[in-house]
Amino acid sequence: MRSDGRAFDALRPVEMILGFHRPSEGSVLYRAGGTIVLCTASVDPKVPPFLEGKGKGWVTAEYQMHPRANPPRRENRDGRGKAPSGRTQEIQRLVGRALRAAVLLERLGEVTITIDCDVLEADGGTRTASVTGGFVALALAVAKLRQRGTVTGPVLREPVAATSVGLLKSDELALDLVYTEDSAAEVDLNVVATASGAIIEVQGTAEGAPAPRARIDAMLDLALDGVAELTRLQRTALAGAGVALDSLLASDAAVTA
Amino acid sequence: MRSDGRAFDALRPVEMILGFHRPSEGSVLYRAGGTIVLCTASVDPKVPPFLEGKGKGWVTAEYQMHPRANPPRRENRDGRGKAPSGRTQEIQRLVGRALRAAVLLERLGEVTITIDCDVLEADGGTRTASVTGGFVALALAVAKLRQRGTVTGPVLREPVAATSVGLLKSDELALDLVYTEDSAAEVDLNVVATASGAIIEVQGTAEGAPAPRARIDAMLDLALDGVAELTRLQRTALAGAGVALDSLLASDAAVTA
Amino acid sequence: MRSDGRAFDALRPVEMILGFHRPSEGSVLYRAGGTIVLCTASVDPKVPPFLEGKGKGWVTAEYQMHPRANPPRRENRDGRGKAPSGRTQEIQRLVGRALRAAVLLERLGEVTITIDCDVLEADGGTRTASVTGGFVALALAVAKLRQRGTVTGPVLREPVAATSVGLLKSDELALDLVYTEDSAAEVDLNVVATASGAIIEVQGTAEGAPAPRARIDAMLDLALDGVAELTRLQRTALAGAGVALDSLLASDAAVTA
Amino acid sequence: MRSDGRAFDALRPVEMILGFHRPSEGSVLYRAGGTIVLCTASVDPKVPPFLEGKGKGWVTAEYQMHPRANPPRRENRDGRGKAPSGRTQEIQRLVGRALRAAVLLERLGEVTITIDCDVLEADGGTRTASVTGGFVALALAVAKLRQRGTVTGPVLREPVAATSVGLLKSDELALDLVYTEDSAAEVDLNVVATASGAIIEVQGTAEGAPAPRARIDAMLDLALDGVAELTRLQRTALAGAGVALDSLLASDAAVTA
Amino acid sequence: MRSDGRAFDALRPVEMILGFHRPSEGSVLYRAGGTIVLCTASVDPKVPPFLEGKGKGWVTAEYQMHPRANPPRRENRDGRGKAPSGRTQEIQRLVGRALRAAVLLERLGEVTITIDCDVLEADGGTRTASVTGGFVALALAVAKLRQRGTVTGPVLREPVAATSVGLLKSDELALDLVYTEDSAAEVDLNVVATASGAIIEVQGTAEGAPAPRARIDAMLDLALDGVAELTRLQRTALAGAGVALDSLLASDAAVTA
Amino acid sequence: MRSDGRAFDALRPVEMILGFHRPSEGSVLYRAGGTIVLCTASVDPKVPPFLEGKGKGWVTAEYQMHPRANPPRRENRDGRGKAPSGRTQEIQRLVGRALRAAVLLERLGEVTITIDCDVLEADGGTRTASVTGGFVALALAVAKLRQRGTVTGPVLREPVAATSVGLLKSDELALDLVYTEDSAAEVDLNVVATASGAIIEVQGTAEGAPAPRARIDAMLDLALDGVAELTRLQRTALAGAGVALDSLLASDAAVTA
Repeated sequence: MRSDGRAFDALRPVEMILGFHRPSEGSVLYRAGGTIVLCTASVDPKVPPFLEGKGKGWVTAEYQMHPRANPPRRENRDGRGKAPSGRTQEIQRLVGRALRAAVLLERLGEVTITIDCDVLEADGGTRTASVTGGFVALALAVAKLRQRGTVTGPVLREPVAATSVGLLKSDELALDLVYTEDSAAEVDLNVVATASGAIIEVQGTAEGAPAPRARIDAMLDLALDGVAELTRLQRTALAGAGVALDSLLASDAAVTA
Repeated sequence: MRSDGRAFDALRPVEMILGFHRPSEGSVLYRAGGTIVLCTASVDPKVPPFLEGKGKGWVTAEYQMHPRANPPRRENRDGRGKAPSGRTQEIQRLVGRALRAAVLLERLGEVTITIDCDVLEADGGTRTASVTGGFVALALAVAKLRQRGTVTGPVLREPVAATSVGLLKSDELALDLVYTEDSAAEVDLNVVATASGAIIEVQGTAEGAPAPRARIDAMLDLALDGVAELTRLQRTALAGAGVALDSLLASDAAVTA
Repeated sequence: MRSDGRAFDALRPVEMILGFHRPSEGSVLYRAGGTIVLCTASVDPKVPPFLEGKGKGWVTAEYQMHPRANPPRRENRDGRGKAPSGRTQEIQRLVGRALRAAVLLERLGEVTITIDCDVLEADGGTRTASVTGGFVALALAVAKLRQRGTVTGPVLREPVAATSVGLLKSDELALDLVYTEDSAAEVDLNVVATASGAIIEVQGTAEGAPAPRARIDAMLDLALDGVAELTRLQRTALAGAGVALDSLLASDAAVTA
Repeated sequence: MRSDGRAFDALRPVEMILGFHRPSEGSVLYRAGGTIVLCTASVDPKVPPFLEGKGKGWVTAEYQMHPRANPPRRENRDGRGKAPSGRTQEIQRLVGRALRAAVLLERLGEVTITIDCDVLEADGGTRTASVTGGFVALALAVAKLRQRGTVTGPVLREPVAATSVGLLKSDELALDLVYTEDSAAEVDLNVVATASGAIIEVQGTAEGAPAPRARIDAMLDLALDGVAELTRLQRTALAGAGVALDSLLASDAAVTA
Repeated sequence: MRSDGRAFDALRPVEMILGFHRPSEGSVLYRAGGTIVLCTASVDPKVPPFLEGKGKGWVTAEYQMHPRANPPRRENRDGRGKAPSGRTQEIQRLVGRALRAAVLLERLGEVTITIDCDVLEADGGTRTASVTGGFVALALAVAKLRQRGTVTGPVLREPVAATSVGLLKSDELALDLVYTEDSAAEVDLNVVATASGAIIEVQGTAEGAPAPRARIDAMLDLALDGVAELTRLQRTALAGAGVALDSLLASDAAVTA
Repeated sequence: MRSDGRAFDALRPVEMILGFHRPSEGSVLYRAGGTIVLCTASVDPKVPPFLEGKGKGWVTAEYQMHPRANPPRRENRDGRGKAPSGRTQEIQRLVGRALRAAVLLERLGEVTITIDCDVLEADGGTRTASVTGGFVALALAVAKLRQRGTVTGPVLREPVAATSVGLLKSDELALDLVYTEDSAAEVDLNVVATASGAIIEVQGTAEGAPAPRARIDAMLDLALDGVAELTRLQRTALAGAGVALDSLLASDAAVTA
C-alpha cells in the first residue's frame, strides 16, 4: 500500500475554493493532498506583438513556488534577482501550452489571459495541479467575459486536466505521485489530456534504466483514467460556482479520442 | 465621510485565519478591508555569518506582491529576473526591523525566523498589514519553539503592530488609508509601535507641501490609537488559536511609553 | 562630551565649495566634519514618460559611495555589475522626494533636474548631507535657468535641509551624529524640513528597545533647530556665490509651520 | 511527398566526422540534412558537490546555437549577458538526462563528462541531433578512458539515440522533421530510446487540437524504428574510428524492451 | 629553436576551408597551427541607430571561445548568464575596428555585416586569427553582395590581416606566438595592417620590465612582414574559391605605406 | 593653431592637488585642461587568490565616469545595475597593467594597492590622465607604507606616465588631444612609458584609413617627449608634498631605453 494509504490507481483527495482571489477574473485555491496551488486568471485587453492585428487571443502562464512550500525554506524565491530556474521555465511553458490547447484562440478576440500559478504548499505534482486548477480559473474568467459580453459564443474546446503516473521500483504503477514516490520512481510520466482522453502533452522520463514500451503504454492508460476523473471534479466545482461548463464548450470543436 | 463609509479615526475590519499555511512554523492569512497578506514564519536553525557564535537569534522578512494584487496585472513579478525594486527592498527592510524589535534576540538562541509576506490583494497599507500580520505569524512560531523546547523562556518584548495616518487635502486626518486615500494624501505617516505606545519606527512623507509640526504630532497620536487597537485584535486572534500571548512576553522587558 | 568635542546640540562644522564641478548647472562640494559629498545638479530638457505633456518638471537623485569613502575599501562599488543595494535605493529615493518638495514643479516647465550625490568621504550623515548639499546645487541650477530665461519666475518653495538626531544609551539626545554615534544610538531620527520648520520627511528607527513618545517629540524639536541653522548656512553660501536665495523663492508658496 | 523528397518514414541522410575537435576526449561533427551539431565530450576528474565521495560519475550537457545557425542572424547569442532562454535550458537538461541514462554512473568513477552541443546549422531536430551525436562523442570519450586505464570495464548500458515524429495536418505521420514540417505539425513527438527500443524520454505536444491516443501510439512506433536505425549508424561510425561499441557495453545491464 | 621547430621569423602553417558554414554569406574555418576559428559573415539589411539614414554601412564582430578550446574545459561559456569578460569585449571591439578599416563604409549601403568568430581550438593568437580569417569571410560576403547586385562597385580598401610578435626572455624576437611563448614573452605586440604595410592597429604591452624603443621598432618590422605573407595566403585562398580579390578592391582607396 | 591655442607639441596645463582625499593612503585630484580625475590609492593587506603565499604584491585599478563628466548627463552610471561597458573594462585593465609595471611586485610584500580613478570632468585623455595621476597616488601610498615600515626598501622601478598623440586630417601631429581633436583624428595613439622613455604600452588605432609606418614612428617620438615632461611634473608635485621620488626608486631596476 502507498504511504498515504491510497490504492495504486487512486487520485489524492481534491478540494477547490473557487473565487478565492477577488481581484482576478477567475481564481481557485486548488488542493490535491499536500499540494496547494493558487491559480488566478487575469484578462488583459491586448496580445503579444507577434499576434497583434490577427484577431486572435493568447493564453500564457507564470509559475512560482512560495519559499516555504517545501519543508526547508529556500533561501530566496526562485528567480528573485536572477532569471527563473530552468525547472520553473519548463513548467510555466508547459502550463501555458496545456491551457492554450483548451481554448479556440481565434474566437477569443484580442485578449491575453494569464494564469498565475502560485504553489503555496508542495508535496509532488505541482505542475499537474497547476494545469488542472489553471483550467478552472480559466473557465471562470471565460464565463466572466461571456457575462461582460466581451466574448459572445463558446470559446473552450474541452476541459483539460493533468496528472502523473510513476513506475515504482516494485514494478507497480502508481497514479498521482506524492513527493517521496516521485523521487523514488523509475519512470515518471506526466500527461495533459482532455475529458475525452485526447492527448495534449506527454512527458515521460526514465530516471534510472530505460523502460520497455509496454510499461509506457500502461502508464498512459492509467494517466488518462486519472485525467477523466479530474475533469469530472472540475465540472462539479464549476457547477457549484454557478458556471455550466457545457455552455462554454464549442460543440463543433469537440475532440474525439 | 470616507469612500468605504468609515469614520476618520476608524480602522478597516480585520480578519485573520491563523495556521492557514501548513508547512511553516507560524502563519496567518491577514485581511484588512481590501488588503490581504499571507504571512508565514519559517524557523531555520542557523544565523547569518555576522551573528555566528554569538548565541543570538535573527529575524528577517521578505515581501512580494502577487502579480494581480492590483487591478491591472503587472507584466512581471517584481524582482523576477532582476533585482527587487527599491520599494520592495524598502518595505522588507522595514518589516524585518519592526519584527526584530519585538524579539529579545539574545534569548532566542542561534535561529533565524524569516517572515514571508505575500500580498495577495492590495488596497493600500500592505506594509503595515505585513508588520501586523507578521507579528502574529512570529508569535505562533515562537509558541511552537516553546512547545518543542528549543526556546525555554519568554522571548518576546511586546506585541507590535503598524498602521498609517494620512493628512487629507481637506486638512482632516484619516486612520488606516485605502489606496485612493493614500494616493491623494498630502502627508502619509506610517508608524510601527508596541501595545503600550512605544515607538519602533516612524516614516512620514509630505508628498506635496511640507507639513506644520503640529499636524505631524496629531497624526502620530491617531496612529498610536490605531496600533493599540490592532494589538488587542492580535491578542484575541492568538487566544482563539490557543496561544496565550502573555506567556510569550518577557515581563522584565516591558516598554514604558 | 562627544568624541569630537562638540556640545550635544551642536552641528558639525560645515564647508561648501560652490561651483566645484564645472560641467553641471549647479554643484557644491559639501563637507560636514568628516563627511564630504559632491552634489551636482544637471538639467535635462525632458521629463519621465508619466509626466510628458503635463507642463510640469521633475527632480530626482542618484547616490553613490566612493569605494574608499570608508576606512576599509569596499571590494566593488555598490551597484557595479549588479543592482544598487537596498540602502542605496532607499537613500536616493529619499533625497529625490526631499528636493522635489522644495520645487513648485508646475512652474519649472518640462525639464528634469537630476541631483547626483557622490559621497567621497563618509563619517555618518551621508543622506542628510546629500539633501542639504543637494538643495544648494539645485538652487544654483535654478538660478542658471533664470539667467538663461528658461524659467521666468521664482520656482522654489522654501530652502530645504536635513539632519539627524540620536537617542544615546546615556539617554542624552545628540544632534548630527558621526558614524560611531550613529552605530551606537538607541534611536536614530532623520528629519528633512524647511527653513520655517515645516516637515517634509521624518524617518525614525529604534534599533534596540522601542522608544517612548516623549523622547521622539524631543528629538524632533532638536532636529528642527539643526535644520534651521543649516538653511542659514545655505543662504550665506549662495549669497557668497552671488545668488540671492529670496529671488528664487515664490512668496505665495511660503510654508507656515 | 516531403519537401526534401524523403518518404514519410525515412530519416534524413546522416554524416558524422569523428574526432573533428582535437582538444576534447571525444567529438563528432554530426550532420542530419540541414542540421549540423558539433558535439564534444570533455572529461573532468571531479564530480558535482552532491555526488562527492559517493564513487559515482556524472554526465551533463550544454547546448548553444551559433548566432547564424538560422537564416536571420540572431542579434545576440542566447544567454550572452543574460540567462540562457527557457528553450535552451529545457534542451540541455534533456540531453544531459538522455546521456546519463546511457551510462552506468556507479562504474564510471568520480569523473564528470560534459557534452557540449554547438549547433552550427539548424534545420529542425537540433535537440535530437544533440542526443544522437552526443552519444557518439560520449562513447569516444569512454573508449579513451578505457585506453588510459582510468576506466577498467564496460560502463555503457546501451547505445542511445533520438528522433522526432510529427502528425501532419494531412493526418500523415512523418519521421525526423525538418524545420518547416516541425512548425506546421499538429503534434510533435520527440523520443529518446535505446538500440533495443527501451524508452528514456518521451515528449509529445499537441500544438493545435489534442490528439487521439491511437495516433500517439503510432507516432511512438515510428520514432522507435528511427532510433533503431540511428543506433546502427552510430555503431558503424564508431567502428570506422576503430572503436568496437560492444566492448564498451556492459552485457549485464542490457535492457529488454 | 622554437617548441614547434619553426624559425623565429616564420608563421605557423595556415589552412582555410572557405564556405564551411552554409547559412552565412561568407565563412571560413581558419587554422593556424593549433588555433582554429570559425569565422562567419552575416549580412543584415539595416544599420545601428546612430547610422540610420546616413547611407553608410557598418561592420562589427562577436568573439567567443568554445568551452573546450583550451585543455581544461571552462566551467561555463564566457558571458553565459553574465556579461562577456573584459578580455572578450576587448577582442571583439578590436576585430570590429580592424575589419571596418578594410571597408569603404559609405559605398557599402545601409547594411551591417557581422563577423562571428568562434574559437574552436586555442593555442595562442586567437584574436589575430579572428582578424585574418574574418577578412576572408568578409570578402566572401562582399563578393556575394556584388553577385546579388546589392553592392555595385568595389567596396574594399585593401586586404587586412593581423599577427603577433614577442620579445622573448632570451631577447630574441619571435613571430606568431603559440600559447606558451605568449605567456612567457617580455613584450607582446599585436599588429593589424594592410597588404601594403599600412597600420590599422598596434597593441603592445610589456608584461614585465618596460621595453626600449628600438626593440618595439624591430618588433613592428617583423610583424609587418608576417602580415604581408598572410595577405598573400588570403588572396590565394579566395582565388581558389573563385573570388578575384582585386575585383573587390577600390583602386582609388589604395593605401600607400 | 589648436582650439585651445596650444602648440601642436604642447601638453595641456596640469594641476595636481595631492592628498585631496583623506581616507585613502594616497590621492591626487589631477587636472589636465578640461579633464579632472580623482585618483586614490588604497592599500589592502591581502592579495588575489592566484598570488596567495607567493610573497608578491599586486596593483589593480578601477575606473568610473561621473554621470555628468560630459556635457549631456548619462542616464545611468556606467555599470550600474549591469556590467561595466567594454570601454570601461578596457581602460581599467590598461591602467592596472601600466601601474603594475611601475612596481617591483616581489618587493612589495603581500598587499594589494587599488587605484580608483573617478573621472569628474572629461575633455579627452581620461585614460592617460588616470595613468599619470594614478602613478602619483601610488607613489604617495608607497611612501606611506615606507613610513609605516610595512615596506622597507625602494619598490618602484621608474616613474610612469601616459599621453596621447593624434594624426589630424591636416596630416599634422598633435600631442595630448582634447575631446574634439580625438574624435576627428585619423589615427589615435596612446603611449604609457617611463621617465627614461622605455615603453610599457602602445595602443594605436587608425579610425579611418590605415596609416603609413613612418607616421606611427613620428607619433611615438612625440608621445615619448610628452611622457618625459609629465614625469618631471609628477616629480615636482611629489616633492611639494614632501615625498622625494628618488628614495622610492630601486636603482638596480632602472630601465635603459
